[in-house]
Amino acid sequence: MRIVLDAMGGDHAPHEPVKGAVRAAKMYGSNVVLVGDEAQIRAELKQYDTRGLNLMVVHAPEQIEMDEHPAQAIRRKSRSSHVIGLKLVQEGVADAFVSAGHSGASMAGALFILGRLPQIERPALATILPSLHDRPMLLLDVGANTDCKPEYLAQFAQMGSIYAERTLGIPTPRIGLLANGEESTKGNRLVQEAHLLLRESNLNFIGNAEPKDLLVNDVCDVVVCDGFVGNLVLKMGEATVSLAAKRGALELRRSFLPRLLLGVAPIAALALQPGPGRWRTLIGAAVGGTGMAGIMLYPLWRLRRVTDYRVYGGAPLLGVKGVVIIAHGRSDAVAVASAIRRAQEAVEVQIVTTISEAVSAGAVTT
Amino acid sequence: MRIVLDAMGGDHAPHEPVKGAVRAAKMYGSNVVLVGDEAQIRAELKQYDTRGLNLMVVHAPEQIEMDEHPAQAIRRKSRSSHVIGLKLVQEGVADAFVSAGHSGASMAGALFILGRLPQIERPALATILPSLHDRPMLLLDVGANTDCKPEYLAQFAQMGSIYAERTLGIPTPRIGLLANGEESTKGNRLVQEAHLLLRESNLNFIGNAEPKDLLVNDVCDVVVCDGFVGNLVLKMGEATVSLAAKRGALELRRSFLPRLLLGVAPIAALALQPGPGRWRTLIGAAVGGTGMAGIMLYPLWRLRRVTDYRVYGGAPLLGVKGVVIIAHGRSDAVAVASAIRRAQEAVEVQIVTTISEAVSAGAVTT
Repeated sequence: MRIVLDAMGGDHAPHEPVKGAVRAAKMYGSNVVLVGDEAQIRAELKQYDTRGLNLMVVHAPEQIEMDEHPAQAIRRKSRSSHVIGLKLVQEGVADAFVSAGHSGASMAGALFILGRLPQIERPALATILPSLHDRPMLLLDVGANTDCKPEYLAQFAQMGSIYAERTLGIPTPRIGLLANGEESTKGNRLVQEAHLLLRESNLNFIGNAEPKDLLVNDVCDVVVCDGFVGNLVLKMGEATVSLAAKRGALELRRSFLPRLLLGVAPIAALALQPGPGRWRTLIGAAVGGTGMAGIMLYPLWRLRRVTDYRVYGGAPLLGVKGVVIIAHGRSDAVAVASAIRRAQEAVEVQIVTTISEAVSAGAVTT
Repeated sequence: MRIVLDAMGGDHAPHEPVKGAVRAAKMYGSNVVLVGDEAQIRAELKQYDTRGLNLMVVHAPEQIEMDEHPAQAIRRKSRSSHVIGLKLVQEGVADAFVSAGHSGASMAGALFILGRLPQIERPALATILPSLHDRPMLLLDVGANTDCKPEYLAQFAQMGSIYAERTLGIPTPRIGLLANGEESTKGNRLVQEAHLLLRESNLNFIGNAEPKDLLVNDVCDVVVCDGFVGNLVLKMGEATVSLAAKRGALELRRSFLPRLLLGVAPIAALALQPGPGRWRTLIGAAVGGTGMAGIMLYPLWRLRRVTDYRVYGGAPLLGVKGVVIIAHGRSDAVAVASAIRRAQEAVEVQIVTTISEAVSAGAVTT
């Protein structure tokens, strides 16, 4: 099995993608084809001991920049890492394509070069969300289709159900429909019509799911929505975490010094008092303070880890003729390696064939 | 000026609404008409010293329950606190209606009983969001209209601009359009078309706004979206805060005891060592630990206060012939009192007449 990695994609390319490829080759035994500027990739590779690792380099002289129009860039830049990488998958030379670069270009490229699966109306981008319980929660579509028909959402549910079952190991996944209330009368017209389709399907449909059902309650495994709403909801979650972190840091900065002085004053008064063993006050204060800081910081550190996008790897684009994993633009080597592993898992369980067969069998008619 | 308060609305009615009315009468000199079950309201009022306060009770024998269909309930329950309260405003006996009860019924009732302002296509529910900088950020629509046309969004922008200018004191408010990217090509069809309308309007339109622009960046004062998306985004913010709080508490519980023992061990070892002044170790540790806990907990407490929905009072329903403030169902007395104050401010600046005149002047043609 060969995984194509867009070595030029992401905010820290080619350094982090190349490092991630080395990491995946070492940790998961991955066979990675690095596509991009050969000289740059080889210069990066020299920093690591790559003996015995399955790493190949394929030269691509062009790159798609973040401000380019996705479809136009794919058409014009036939020698870009996106186009050359996806063609390797299309020709059967490789089995999956992973990129942390221009996500619109990855989706457009997947559509033009690999093509849609027969009977799939629209491919969908799926992502795993952090949740209170430690089970993965799959949300799709998070950005491939800004305007959807009810039938698309029903197909997203079907693809998501298969993906959750096969790669996340969830038997008969519980499917929710993202809405602003549990009642079937809630939601906009699209959601109300999709609700009826899903209720008639043979999926394990549990009804409408609210944002708290995505993150806090353990009521569903897969939640579907249109790509505009999914992308906004995802970004709102990120923005809220960012607000809390920044605001917390601001408050800490504002209050740290006066409070530190408040704490230091009694300790100093105590330590300066004459009498034997006054150093004990200081040691006691240092140990007590450090211990308490550890007790309070550890859960915050764990919280950061739990909401860390890196451990979830990339987002699979479901419904195209090939495995395509879109990683976060900010991906570091750890994130790139876990996106490569996600691609391997999807290839192993033959996700493309499975989705194609299930949809052909007509679980949801459109 | 008289403010009608639905004394039967909210999770803690009539206790908290009545307490909130007393608080508003004392703190803001409000003149409040409590509508609901007279016996229950009077029993609650007896708990407070209400001499000299402007509090009136109007009996309403029916209530609208949370699971009722909004429009049907308004039509059927003509003796409910919603209908009787809104009629007091419609007849000019009172100037504003405040409710923490069934929000759908409040909106439907406002439409049926007060009616839309001429030339307003759809009223919109506006809410103030917490943000990193301490300036208020107005988001609308957050739930009145699940399916919108581009013209509605343009009118929401106009109403929001006037509200922000008049009641929040922001001169020529910066208007954003909620989308999943800054570029004007981002967003679904509705957003793209609304973008063109807003660009042609005489509003201070700054372009598309992403969720991070709502919460973290100080780039706009008013952001518009359809009510389905607005409601979801709001709920996603709440769910993320809830996830972080619950997860943080879980991690703290998991790690507190083992870490406390880790901290206690060296202190105990030190304190048990023979020698003079060993009590100093303990006092030092206690002071140091408490000081550090204070330093770390204070910003978290401040964070909670900043994201507290209560201080922002209720959400105004803009575009109807009267001032209507919809408070959170979980409102306590503090939240109810600040919703009453918000209603007073809106009446004082004659928000209804101002919106009506501005829209008639044709800032946005539909």
